Amino acid sequence: MRTVDIIGKKRDGAELSRDEIEGFIRGFVAGEVPDYQAAAWCMAVYWRGMTPSETACLTEAMAFSGATLDLHDVAPFVVDKHSSGGVGDKTTLVVAPIVASLGVPVAKMSGRGLSFSGGTLDKLEAISGFRFDLTIDQFKSQLRRISLVLAGQTHELAPADGKLYALRDVTATVDSLPLIASSIMSKKIAAGADGIVLDVKAGKGAFMATEEQAIVLADLMVQIGRRLGRRMTAVIGNMEQPLGLAAGNALEVAEAIDTLRGRGPADFTEHCLDVAAEMLLLADPATEPAVARQRALYSIADGSAFAKFREFVAAQGGDLRQIDDPSSLPRAPIQLPLLAAQTGYVAAADARAVGYAVVDLGGGRARKSDPVDPSVGVVLAPEAKIGCRVEAGQPLLQVHARDEATAQAALRRLAQAWRFAPQPVAPPPLIHRIIR
Amino acid sequence: MRTVDIIGKKRDGAELSRDEIEGFIRGFVAGEVPDYQAAAWCMAVYWRGMTPSETACLTEAMAFSGATLDLHDVAPFVVDKHSSGGVGDKTTLVVAPIVASLGVPVAKMSGRGLSFSGGTLDKLEAISGFRFDLTIDQFKSQLRRISLVLAGQTHELAPADGKLYALRDVTATVDSLPLIASSIMSKKIAAGADGIVLDVKAGKGAFMATEEQAIVLADLMVQIGRRLGRRMTAVIGNMEQPLGLAAGNALEVAEAIDTLRGRGPADFTEHCLDVAAEMLLLADPATEPAVARQRALYSIADGSAFAKFREFVAAQGGDLRQIDDPSSLPRAPIQLPLLAAQTGYVAAADARAVGYAVVDLGGGRARKSDPVDPSVGVVLAPEAKIGCRVEAGQPLLQVHARDEATAQAALRRLAQAWRFAPQPVAPPPLIHRIIR
Repeated sequence: MRTVDIIGKKRDGAELSRDEIEGFIRGFVAGEVPDYQAAAWCMAVYWRGMTPSETACLTEAMAFSGATLDLHDVAPFVVDKHSSGGVGDKTTLVVAPIVASLGVPVAKMSGRGLSFSGGTLDKLEAISGFRFDLTIDQFKSQLRRISLVLAGQTHELAPADGKLYALRDVTATVDSLPLIASSIMSKKIAAGADGIVLDVKAGKGAFMATEEQAIVLADLMVQIGRRLGRRMTAVIGNMEQPLGLAAGNALEVAEAIDTLRGRGPADFTEHCLDVAAEMLLLADPATEPAVARQRALYSIADGSAFAKFREFVAAQGGDLRQIDDPSSLPRAPIQLPLLAAQTGYVAAADARAVGYAVVDLGGGRARKSDPVDPSVGVVLAPEAKIGCRVEAGQPLLQVHARDEATAQAALRRLAQAWRFAPQPVAPPPLIHRIIR
Repeated sequence: MRTVDIIGKKRDGAELSRDEIEGFIRGFVAGEVPDYQAAAWCMAVYWRGMTPSETACLTEAMAFSGATLDLHDVAPFVVDKHSSGGVGDKTTLVVAPIVASLGVPVAKMSGRGLSFSGGTLDKLEAISGFRFDLTIDQFKSQLRRISLVLAGQTHELAPADGKLYALRDVTATVDSLPLIASSIMSKKIAAGADGIVLDVKAGKGAFMATEEQAIVLADLMVQIGRRLGRRMTAVIGNMEQPLGLAAGNALEVAEAIDTLRGRGPADFTEHCLDVAAEMLLLADPATEPAVARQRALYSIADGSAFAKFREFVAAQGGDLRQIDDPSSLPRAPIQLPLLAAQTGYVAAADARAVGYAVVDLGGGRARKSDPVDPSVGVVLAPEAKIGCRVEAGQPLLQVHARDEATAQAALRRLAQAWRFAPQPVAPPPLIHRIIR
């Protein structure tokens, strides 16, 4: 079938066959299907959607469009987690060491932050010397040695996805459910994990605005993964307000260290235990969920999770002095508080506004090529979260800034992000649903 | 506004502003908006459509994307006609000399045939020596001298349309009403006509399958033209069966000559008089329609229309001996009849099948680059048209072919194209509607 006919078939809302999708992706990677045809096709998919079967075919075609990683010579069952992005989401930094410390190998490729959402690579780079540019041999040998490795995404894995994503980015076709799901899943499939926990967020600080949208995306990715022979779980969590208290790279590393030492914010600790338990359950489905969660909690209590984190940082070149003394992480020179404008119950603490404030401060990216300042960010007071009672004049948060001007700009934005109610407000649920 | 945001705005169904459309087209012609963004935009337009105001802005932006022709130094009011394509549609060859012979200047740019539909340039090239590659000076000086000139479309006029059409052709975005309408009208506007008669066909042998679709397209083009200050009329005609009796380039030239001499097929002569009358009315709206039609008829009766046609052919290098003796036009060596398979009333005479039979015979184009044989084609018997009674074994048509094999293939296709009914069948109307 000619490419123009494949575009026309999707434009008319018909289901593409496996051969049509594979041929299209193969031609696109080989440069035989030009960008303009792929762009028209993406817009047709944006319009007409894809069936789960089409989406799985697309995922598989992209996953196998380049090199793939087979980790079975290192470990019989490897787990991965994927976050759909959020504000203050440093979950990987905590759950990966927990799970690895319990003997379940974790091999993960992570990304950079974009727009209001942070990225794991940016966070870990706040630690001096931390390196992600591992060869496949280094990746495997570290996984074998300490059961935990984290690398940047390489262009060798799922090159079709990298090429298609770059095109979607400039053709207004990013926000398409099947294209989002296949993009995420193709990288996960190519990276060789046997079990994947999807940590999908819904709310102002997430790419999915509503719980319903997040569930649809999560459910689709779970279906894709299972069609391709992976064990899959999705945790759909709330992201109306930031996760934990810290947003900003070094500040989040410090909060992750606190959490691994058993002194993290309650909501974030809960979230990490939930995700870690699901990862353990994928590796050993015979375990009782309550037991898996208990094991995760003990790994923090007995210090083994933190020890694994230190081992991991050392293995990837990071400076352990900063881990043992987080006050030596990069620190911004200016700290200014935002004071509560009125007395009442916190009714809104807009996570997206906090994310954009971090970008304004220089700690995130408006464009992919922007450099990131690891030191800046926002740290909430525990009372700034939804449902808490505050008195007028009480500090809601501290802004960490390079200079007075960016600090004041961030404070102006953040002042709009909090709302108060005279009556008590129920805090949002941490977890909306788990799809096992 | 960034290009990706213009694509996104259209994707979401919003109306683009004049500035956004102009900027997009300007950038596209300059190569600043890459093909892949234009392709995604075309698919978004295909999906969401365009308002008449957007379509007029797009037409204007494309019309003024390159050189434009101003004919007012030659004639105060120039008329043009545009056919939406069809089978056996040699209308231009007859109406242009009629109108010009009555003192109304006709300046026209015509195209080639594609798929089942013929093209005026291919037809006139059946005449030895006929040339279309006129300079603008030659175009104007011929218009001044004999009030009639016909050239091929130049890439200098409306270059945005040429570039966008090539892209639509390979991205499954051809069949979009606003893109079709703006493509046609941008070329007409750039070519300098003050009044335009749209000859829009509906039915099996046309690009618009139904009367309703044809009316929607015609109405949109009339609106666009009027917004841009042109006098506009649309004639919506029927194209279930071929127009006239001949389909094929030299065969159609011969039929046009017969018609200009007052001996043409009744349906085709009627159609030409209708279209010519509308062209005369655009130039002089004070005339009574019946009077305009009468004048057109007289121009045939008194020989002035045919004399103008001879003048026109001579001016553009054509061999007048072929005009005066059409039997000297290119003639295919093989002529074979199709015999009626049964006795009855003709219920269908599928124009599209006739058009494709001409392509099979070598007289049309499957691809733009295909060469065309001027001699081949199909000539219907007058009784082969819908509503006529035929006896089994009576010839329905003659196939004119290069060889026996292509003749037989065409006959097989054509045998499927005729249907018969035992009861009388009403012939289809020639004209569905006129939008004045």
